[in-house]
Amino acid sequence: MKNDLLQVGVIGAGMIGALHARNIARKTQGAAVAAVMDVDSERAQVVAADCGAQAYTDAGALIADPAVDALLIASPDAFHAEQTLACIDAGKPVLCEKPMATSVADGERVLQAELAAGRRLAQVGFMRVYDQTHADVYDMLARGDIGKALSFRGEHINPWRENSSIEGAIINSLIHDIHSARWLMNAEISQVFVQWVRSEPDQPRSARYAIVQLAFADGAIGTLEWSGDSGYGYEIVVEITGEAGKARTISHSSPVLRRGHTASQGVSPDWPQRFAQAYLNEVQIWVDAIRGGQPTGPSAWDGYMSLVVAEACIRSVESGLPERAVGRQRPALYNPR
Amino acid sequence: MKNDLLQVGVIGAGMIGALHARNIARKTQGAAVAAVMDVDSERAQVVAADCGAQAYTDAGALIADPAVDALLIASPDAFHAEQTLACIDAGKPVLCEKPMATSVADGERVLQAELAAGRRLAQVGFMRVYDQTHADVYDMLARGDIGKALSFRGEHINPWRENSSIEGAIINSLIHDIHSARWLMNAEISQVFVQWVRSEPDQPRSARYAIVQLAFADGAIGTLEWSGDSGYGYEIVVEITGEAGKARTISHSSPVLRRGHTASQGVSPDWPQRFAQAYLNEVQIWVDAIRGGQPTGPSAWDGYMSLVVAEACIRSVESGLPERAVGRQRPALYNPR
Amino acid sequence: MKNDLLQVGVIGAGMIGALHARNIARKTQGAAVAAVMDVDSERAQVVAADCGAQAYTDAGALIADPAVDALLIASPDAFHAEQTLACIDAGKPVLCEKPMATSVADGERVLQAELAAGRRLAQVGFMRVYDQTHADVYDMLARGDIGKALSFRGEHINPWRENSSIEGAIINSLIHDIHSARWLMNAEISQVFVQWVRSEPDQPRSARYAIVQLAFADGAIGTLEWSGDSGYGYEIVVEITGEAGKARTISHSSPVLRRGHTASQGVSPDWPQRFAQAYLNEVQIWVDAIRGGQPTGPSAWDGYMSLVVAEACIRSVESGLPERAVGRQRPALYNPR
Amino acid sequence: MKNDLLQVGVIGAGMIGALHARNIARKTQGAAVAAVMDVDSERAQVVAADCGAQAYTDAGALIADPAVDALLIASPDAFHAEQTLACIDAGKPVLCEKPMATSVADGERVLQAELAAGRRLAQVGFMRVYDQTHADVYDMLARGDIGKALSFRGEHINPWRENSSIEGAIINSLIHDIHSARWLMNAEISQVFVQWVRSEPDQPRSARYAIVQLAFADGAIGTLEWSGDSGYGYEIVVEITGEAGKARTISHSSPVLRRGHTASQGVSPDWPQRFAQAYLNEVQIWVDAIRGGQPTGPSAWDGYMSLVVAEACIRSVESGLPERAVGRQRPALYNPR
Repeated sequence: MKNDLLQVGVIGAGMIGALHARNIARKTQGAAVAAVMDVDSERAQVVAADCGAQAYTDAGALIADPAVDALLIASPDAFHAEQTLACIDAGKPVLCEKPMATSVADGERVLQAELAAGRRLAQVGFMRVYDQTHADVYDMLARGDIGKALSFRGEHINPWRENSSIEGAIINSLIHDIHSARWLMNAEISQVFVQWVRSEPDQPRSARYAIVQLAFADGAIGTLEWSGDSGYGYEIVVEITGEAGKARTISHSSPVLRRGHTASQGVSPDWPQRFAQAYLNEVQIWVDAIRGGQPTGPSAWDGYMSLVVAEACIRSVESGLPERAVGRQRPALYNPR
Repeated sequence: MKNDLLQVGVIGAGMIGALHARNIARKTQGAAVAAVMDVDSERAQVVAADCGAQAYTDAGALIADPAVDALLIASPDAFHAEQTLACIDAGKPVLCEKPMATSVADGERVLQAELAAGRRLAQVGFMRVYDQTHADVYDMLARGDIGKALSFRGEHINPWRENSSIEGAIINSLIHDIHSARWLMNAEISQVFVQWVRSEPDQPRSARYAIVQLAFADGAIGTLEWSGDSGYGYEIVVEITGEAGKARTISHSSPVLRRGHTASQGVSPDWPQRFAQAYLNEVQIWVDAIRGGQPTGPSAWDGYMSLVVAEACIRSVESGLPERAVGRQRPALYNPR
Repeated sequence: MKNDLLQVGVIGAGMIGALHARNIARKTQGAAVAAVMDVDSERAQVVAADCGAQAYTDAGALIADPAVDALLIASPDAFHAEQTLACIDAGKPVLCEKPMATSVADGERVLQAELAAGRRLAQVGFMRVYDQTHADVYDMLARGDIGKALSFRGEHINPWRENSSIEGAIINSLIHDIHSARWLMNAEISQVFVQWVRSEPDQPRSARYAIVQLAFADGAIGTLEWSGDSGYGYEIVVEITGEAGKARTISHSSPVLRRGHTASQGVSPDWPQRFAQAYLNEVQIWVDAIRGGQPTGPSAWDGYMSLVVAEACIRSVESGLPERAVGRQRPALYNPR
Repeated sequence: MKNDLLQVGVIGAGMIGALHARNIARKTQGAAVAAVMDVDSERAQVVAADCGAQAYTDAGALIADPAVDALLIASPDAFHAEQTLACIDAGKPVLCEKPMATSVADGERVLQAELAAGRRLAQVGFMRVYDQTHADVYDMLARGDIGKALSFRGEHINPWRENSSIEGAIINSLIHDIHSARWLMNAEISQVFVQWVRSEPDQPRSARYAIVQLAFADGAIGTLEWSGDSGYGYEIVVEITGEAGKARTISHSSPVLRRGHTASQGVSPDWPQRFAQAYLNEVQIWVDAIRGGQPTGPSAWDGYMSLVVAEACIRSVESGLPERAVGRQRPALYNPR
């Protein structure tokens, strides 16, 4: 805590890592960036220089650096579990980008490590929790505005044509919606059924558009809609139907432009624009929580259960049938307080 | 009442006259078109043939035709007063397009003739009264949803570049908004102040855009916005501020199209599309009312008072100052029932 | 064709039958109501008197009446197939409310009868086809505004607490959405998967809310959302995702009321308000088409295929699994022209 | 610049002063609160303690404190001019809440003092410049999305019943809209005409609702709508009509709640909620600008010209007529760069 600032080490200096590093360095109270790691040493140096930090090319060395109080992992998905485990072993708090791992088995290892440590060290980067309109829906539910929740609907519309497989879409992108559903419905997902439209007609596992039908443990149901190439921009919608009404986020708040026979609003180009404030909030609240004791955001349990559901989705892709999502019992460490 | 149908004579076979004639012939219960008049005999014949009616080129002859029970006047504005007077003289009900006359003096003559007749024969074509969303706002006010009305706002956005003078815009187009304001606020307009932007920089009286500020006799205030060349389509908005809230019509109900970084709705191209149903309602209710006794829609009093306000607007154009709008006392014939 | 008007016999004088009868009698050009039948003779007489028609208590007698040119069936669902068959046997055009039958087997009988007659006589009352906002979405697709359709979403939100079974919800209510999906996507539904939330916790087949996941024969997918007791009103939404964009109907066009910390729009109380104009359009276009030769609206084929999909939904309810919807080949009589 | 942080002295520890002080202390990079002054010493101490600052009851002493690098004035309006002059005399940058003074004469004194200093020291707290949706409209205009601007409309809707005079409403509240209009239209206001509705029927200068009609020096026109007691919440709307289209801010971005026959969105309760982010942006950008040289936000010229227009409004209140707004020539110091 040099200069009374939480000294953060950032692992991964790509798009999202650089975003987090600059947010911490310039726009977060009570924290500084001590170190930035990337296997591409030039990339590490550019971001490190920009943040007044030291550059690393080895994640282990950065984690071990005594000048680093806490870690933010934004490396490729395949490294998330090992690096999070290393942070837990070092007894250092860690905010790991989603997914927490790329398999349930690896997620379970992280969970076990944290349970062995006996306290929360890890937080997973489900940043929608820190988005105002998602928080508004959460509050509406908590106030009872729509009564008991019966159904969840998530729309996750991406703008880019990327050559995604349906499995990749599930593990890397739909996992956001899986967490949203669990969080807002305050219930675990017990069954999933996946259908999708191919992006490449001759590649059966290529995915352009998908629908996941959900059943929750408490009897509620729902759907997730996912698009990998919307043709019009980026958009996230959450809609919850309750016994007394319905809450639905709106996605466009820009001015209305009337011109040429239409009245239109701009659509976000992509996630960095749409969630700019949520990423700032996420890091600020994480820093504050760590300085106050332990993280309060999405936990290793959330990371693990999201993977349990994601793997059930992949089984549904393979079987063409609904599949059960069954995780272990929730350890007491993760009980709501 | 041949075949138990109200036999209507239509004067003027231009765009709006032809619209009314076809609406009566094809889509109105209890009425038929007996005759169609236009100084352009070919135009009269085309519309007459289309409606199974007789063609005239002389308005007086059509009005006098004993086969004609009631008249609909859609001739150029300059003929409205004389033709309406002729109908009243003939003791035949008449629906005259707005404006009822082109001067207060002529409007007064129509009013006096009707008062002499001792019963309502004339209705003026302020068709917004028959538009659902205007009626919804009327009902909101009547129910007290927004409390006592404090302010009226009208937006009248035209799509076409026409070479209009500010005086022409007032008498022919803003007169709709003047009536809307009087009707929805249930009060007479007592003062107006007009400003406008020229369409032709070197022609001081050319008008592209105008704002009229209003004072009402009961202390309420308001504004009218008028555009003669919006660049994007046709749109009518009414907004009323009351002591307890605000009511505002929405103007776009078409599906939302997300495409190319925007979410958009189509704007009506022009008034025939926007008010298609209102024109149908207007004529049907007029026919029903006449068959039941006398017209119930906008009256000669409404036609006269709208002209009183319009002339005050023209005085404001000339003086550059607010001007009073002072009409005669409302005759008992026009008291609300 | 007495008085050159299509003389319609209306079977069933309940809510929807009375609505149709009065629409034909008062608001439709070129048609009259010749006869009204209901097993409740008083109910038949009230509606018949209102329409200047003769009252019947026997459907067969009404169908056989030579004064009756065409039939409109609005009896309970269980009678639809037999009565439609009787009309076809009598060689009289018939507009039958949905569903056309209550089983695929009965639907097949109607289809066979019409094929034996060799010409279209039956139309099914899928009135959304005549709703402006549905037509707008159809046009957007036809114009290519959103490119090739990838996914259909229908929301069918009912306001009333009725003691519906999931099977009843499918056959009587979701059948509207099944037809919407087939019509707008211009493709047959090939697979369905149904989940629902019970209205009565101890009655496994009671239904308050349901989601149906769809696959289409051309590779597109979709979902239907159905609510039997929304708590807030009636609402129908259609959303289609295409390769280039998305089209979504809006459901509220009433004025915005700002009051008490909210800005709100009214929601339709129920279907008669929401589809008032569509029911008028449906009957007018049906009358015009019959006078011109044969019906052009939703056909016996549409009625049959909707039942094929509905029965697949019921099998999915029973199996808890996705189920195939397989109908016969489309006869040439029903090819698009 | 102790600790390399801009040390800010906050004058006035009421609602807005406390908001600014806490924003600087907790949420602004590169600045700290060195001192807080209020004539109520307890109030000064509470806020000072909260910000780790020293408490003052004398503004002059605080301004003179060598530990204070820059000032933020949030005292009652009557003190703004004198305190801003004192800051300029001390050569310290100052961000003064609006209005910069309560008369043109006092505004002129501030302007002259800054001109004598030969560099920009003062910024006026027109925070809408830092609001995203206002910035979006500014950008639309700059990009030419709507062509040349013809008309400005501002809606300024306050939620509270305060016993305001029309003069007070103009100087303290409408001055925001006057600046908005000048800023977004990039033109000075040359004429105003004011009408209002009384809040107390027997007090002629009491104001509940007002409309100000505007003319701009470049020929454009406009209106300002002001409500002092909306009955429903707080709302700011800006709408600009151009030759090619129209841009209008939307004011509600919260989720849509369907419940009890309405679909509604929440309205901001008051300005602290609506402009929370704008106040943060304003202070951050001010701090960054001062550390980089001199302020870049609304200037003493903007403060002065807003007062010129406000005084013309007050003359219009007194005369019941349109009144000219004539300021001095813009000094070169305030030319756009």
